[in-house]
Amino acid sequence: MPMLQSIKWENNAVYILDQRLLPDKVEYLKCTHYEQIARAIENLSIRGAPAIGIAAAWAVAVASKSLNASSSEELFSDLNPVFQRLINTRPTAVNIKWAIDRMQNLIKNNLSLPVSELKDIILDEAIQIHNEDIQINKRIGEYALEFFKEGCTVITYCNAGALATGGYGTATAPMYIAKEKGIKFKVIACETRPVLQGARITAFELMQAGIDVTLICDNTAGALLRKGMIDFAIVGTDRTVRNGDVANKIGTYSLSVLCKENNVPFYVAAPTSSIDLSIPSGDMIPIEERSFEEVTTIKGVRIAPEGIKVINFAFDVTPAKYVTAIITEKGIFKPAEIQELRFR
Amino acid sequence: MPMLQSIKWENNAVYILDQRLLPDKVEYLKCTHYEQIARAIENLSIRGAPAIGIAAAWAVAVASKSLNASSSEELFSDLNPVFQRLINTRPTAVNIKWAIDRMQNLIKNNLSLPVSELKDIILDEAIQIHNEDIQINKRIGEYALEFFKEGCTVITYCNAGALATGGYGTATAPMYIAKEKGIKFKVIACETRPVLQGARITAFELMQAGIDVTLICDNTAGALLRKGMIDFAIVGTDRTVRNGDVANKIGTYSLSVLCKENNVPFYVAAPTSSIDLSIPSGDMIPIEERSFEEVTTIKGVRIAPEGIKVINFAFDVTPAKYVTAIITEKGIFKPAEIQELRFR
Repeated sequence: MPMLQSIKWENNAVYILDQRLLPDKVEYLKCTHYEQIARAIENLSIRGAPAIGIAAAWAVAVASKSLNASSSEELFSDLNPVFQRLINTRPTAVNIKWAIDRMQNLIKNNLSLPVSELKDIILDEAIQIHNEDIQINKRIGEYALEFFKEGCTVITYCNAGALATGGYGTATAPMYIAKEKGIKFKVIACETRPVLQGARITAFELMQAGIDVTLICDNTAGALLRKGMIDFAIVGTDRTVRNGDVANKIGTYSLSVLCKENNVPFYVAAPTSSIDLSIPSGDMIPIEERSFEEVTTIKGVRIAPEGIKVINFAFDVTPAKYVTAIITEKGIFKPAEIQELRFR
Repeated sequence: MPMLQSIKWENNAVYILDQRLLPDKVEYLKCTHYEQIARAIENLSIRGAPAIGIAAAWAVAVASKSLNASSSEELFSDLNPVFQRLINTRPTAVNIKWAIDRMQNLIKNNLSLPVSELKDIILDEAIQIHNEDIQINKRIGEYALEFFKEGCTVITYCNAGALATGGYGTATAPMYIAKEKGIKFKVIACETRPVLQGARITAFELMQAGIDVTLICDNTAGALLRKGMIDFAIVGTDRTVRNGDVANKIGTYSLSVLCKENNVPFYVAAPTSSIDLSIPSGDMIPIEERSFEEVTTIKGVRIAPEGIKVINFAFDVTPAKYVTAIITEKGIFKPAEIQELRFR
């Protein structure tokens, strides 16, 4: 089953699939400086909470390689602006901070090493974070497989796919595994305005894998749910907080309400790295606002009057009461159970 | 207050504003043959239930003018394929059939007249239908004005605006009247995928009139409703049926559910010509499916993978339970009261 990779390490460089060009072109950006990776995160060449966490880890590795620090202490201090730059790229996703924290702890715990050895274990840690992500997604997929009954139809939103992660995806992991096992099912992919990750990326990666996928405009999901055409929803998340509230791509909240209104289960695939127990409620999650051009133009083509005012929230919060269950690599939980988990 | 016209009669021709070109160009199609008008309806150059009813009436007038019938009976019979052609252009909106019925009754009642006189009264009837529509919309606007409190924010969907009608619009009529009266209010316009009537037309016509309008992607409405940023919704309808169910642009149902979930009133502006008491329930309204290219391309630019499957319902049904009130030119009604009305 062909599965595209969002990010890879080859010949001492990080290669990032430029997802802005999908589905027209499959083109990798070669990054040998952390700033190139920071920009790729910022401009959505790479996106998806787990993938940008991995990218941030690689960025630290790339930065440490190029720094001329004479000691491990000096390297740590020189990396400070790198950490800050990366954390500032996307404020809503917790994975960048999670990856940076992990790198910082690794460095702190190994300051006694010679700087060249420290650089090696930083690189190893980035590789490790990437591989762990793939393993985590496969486990999420295996847990969620129980919902994939023969002949079912599942709706998904945005791209919590292989390309949003190190591989397999979160919401898509059970799809790839169900496909491998020969289970028949259909996927409805919501296009996900404004950046159209559903149309450009989810539809593309599932088609590539030979999965039966149908594209709809976001506003069509309600009608299909009301007609009984959908068995369940499964979406990703950028951050799930202590009370079980879930932040995800703008429009996820609407889909969850429409599912509830039509008695259709609404599942969230959430690697534990995206669960943030430090925040008590979804309404305290910072929500990124993005530029108005994302709404008024599509691929550079203007679709709205010049000078129109725009509101462009990149994410919304789905309150726990709309979430049937949260699927992690450690099992399936009710949203209320999240607060009892201790992951880190 | 400058208000664009969707359709006008000048120098023995019908001029239709080509709304496919908005907001880039304001260009009128000159129509001297009914087939040009039928195609303009079909290809969405003119759209909106009342406007296409008016266009159908004008098409009958244009056709009768050009037919060489030697008697009124012969004219009536020669017009039969014209009626059929027009009814077949858009199956969901009731207004075309309403206009055709009215023209047919007029002709039946005047078959004793000489054919030239019959042609004159057919033309007068088209003018009359157009003028009546403007008067009806103004009355809807005056009834709905009570919801426009100083400083309120209203959300609307698709374009039930001046350009969807003969003038003033249905959902927008109270906005134009409130603006004339100096009431301060804000409008949130949903872009309305796939054809983007909200972005291209509603945002455009309200901006032109100096109304404070903000554009959002359809999937952002839920988040704004949940944040308490919206006081009420007002939308148009293509067909409202006996039990108070409402057919309107795909996504209207979703907006109504999100309003209900957040205790925000959801109003439907419905000229009585769009109320169809012959149909008992919304689920019996025929729903037009349109071409997949509307979803996969925007202004000719591809946004989805080649060969992707698509579901593209043009309309959905909002069950009566989500509708706070229906605003007609005869007053404001609860959906359950619709069945007691006798309009025709």
